[in-house]
Amino acid sequence: MRNLKIIIEYDGTAYCGWQVQNSSRKRSIQETIEKALRKILQENIKIIASGRTDAGVHARAQVANFKTKSKISTDKLQAALNGNLPKDIVITAIEEVASGFHSRFNAKSKLYRYIILNRSYPSALLKDKVYFFRYPLNVALMREEAKALLGKHDFKAFCASSSSAKDTVRRIKKIVVKSLPADSKDGSRIVIDIEANGFLYNMVRNITGALVEAGRGKFPKGSLKRILAGKDRKLAGPALPACGLSLVQVKY
Amino acid sequence: MRNLKIIIEYDGTAYCGWQVQNSSRKRSIQETIEKALRKILQENIKIIASGRTDAGVHARAQVANFKTKSKISTDKLQAALNGNLPKDIVITAIEEVASGFHSRFNAKSKLYRYIILNRSYPSALLKDKVYFFRYPLNVALMREEAKALLGKHDFKAFCASSSSAKDTVRRIKKIVVKSLPADSKDGSRIVIDIEANGFLYNMVRNITGALVEAGRGKFPKGSLKRILAGKDRKLAGPALPACGLSLVQVKY
Repeated sequence: MRNLKIIIEYDGTAYCGWQVQNSSRKRSIQETIEKALRKILQENIKIIASGRTDAGVHARAQVANFKTKSKISTDKLQAALNGNLPKDIVITAIEEVASGFHSRFNAKSKLYRYIILNRSYPSALLKDKVYFFRYPLNVALMREEAKALLGKHDFKAFCASSSSAKDTVRRIKKIVVKSLPADSKDGSRIVIDIEANGFLYNMVRNITGALVEAGRGKFPKGSLKRILAGKDRKLAGPALPACGLSLVQVKY
Repeated sequence: MRNLKIIIEYDGTAYCGWQVQNSSRKRSIQETIEKALRKILQENIKIIASGRTDAGVHARAQVANFKTKSKISTDKLQAALNGNLPKDIVITAIEEVASGFHSRFNAKSKLYRYIILNRSYPSALLKDKVYFFRYPLNVALMREEAKALLGKHDFKAFCASSSSAKDTVRRIKKIVVKSLPADSKDGSRIVIDIEANGFLYNMVRNITGALVEAGRGKFPKGSLKRILAGKDRKLAGPALPACGLSLVQVKY
């Protein structure tokens, strides 16, 4: 059996997320790719991703792998997949990897990006790709607050209360809050990059939600540090919508 | 009567174009905005744009104007419009202008942009926003060929044969063919900017179509000059799809 690693770019708008959700009428990204693989390879393929993404979340470079008996070249398989997949899912690379490679277990860290469009009117061309927030945000303050999250912590306060995760300790390697210039073509965007060894359910959307509360002046200085220490989801404010979020990179 | 000038950003994917098309089941951008204005202002409003855009063509900054009896502030009207319009149409600015201002007649030039994604696989995140072309293109050659179009010419060869235009002379003020680096996040993009005092029906898509034929080696050197002189639509090759095109700026 060959072990193939694929890199996937997707627009998550039309999907229930990476994995099948019985509660949703929408299709999952995983089943859509598996169906295309089944058609091309005439095999029942099960693909393993680096991790799930939620309904409406995008990916620039999700990583997955699967085993196959097929001898098809990776170039041919990539072209056949892209020919059979809907336009909002694209395989950007395929390579054969060692049989032991596992997209999820071997992932060392993941980089997520959250984009806020911060101006007085939304964007038609970026709809479903950014979160539109019309009130002024203090980016310097958001950057300062974010620092409290760097390093190894119990992120229970930023984990969805519906999650069944027992171990809520994760390590944030990088958290960068950047402001793109207001005179840029698409208006003023605030880009928040978070790299961690793993993420809890809704963790990025909960962290960015708390940062927005801080940036708009609803949370006093030092709030993120206190929320983190409090380990209570109710302290952190609302999660931001999925549309602003994308999985940018998985590191191995 | 006040004369209001509006700047409109739209994703043209779901529309039959700026203007109503009886042959299409899709709605037009114009009627969608007029309907929202009617609802807000309780007046029958007729808006005049700088020019039509075709089905699937986008705009970063289409300009239109309309007369109204209403005394509503421009800020309030902008917020009300954006609250009533679908997400793929956004009013990015409104200002009151002199009663004589006419979006179409007063336009001095328009700038259109055509984006080609030139790599071996498409983009899920840029779907419907770029034209995906998988075969190598010689950008330097496209740039060289484009020079023949600069200035005042009869552009009959680049005008849709279905057009009823009698005067097919236009002046191209600027034509720039840029290549974005292959290592950029979204792959290798070729951006073609064309500014002219006016455009014939399908003119940009016909010109960029001929440039692609030149860039892939199907047209010999000097072809665009000859096609222009030939004044025959059949010489210029196929038009490119609407999705890669957007109206970037209207100058007054």
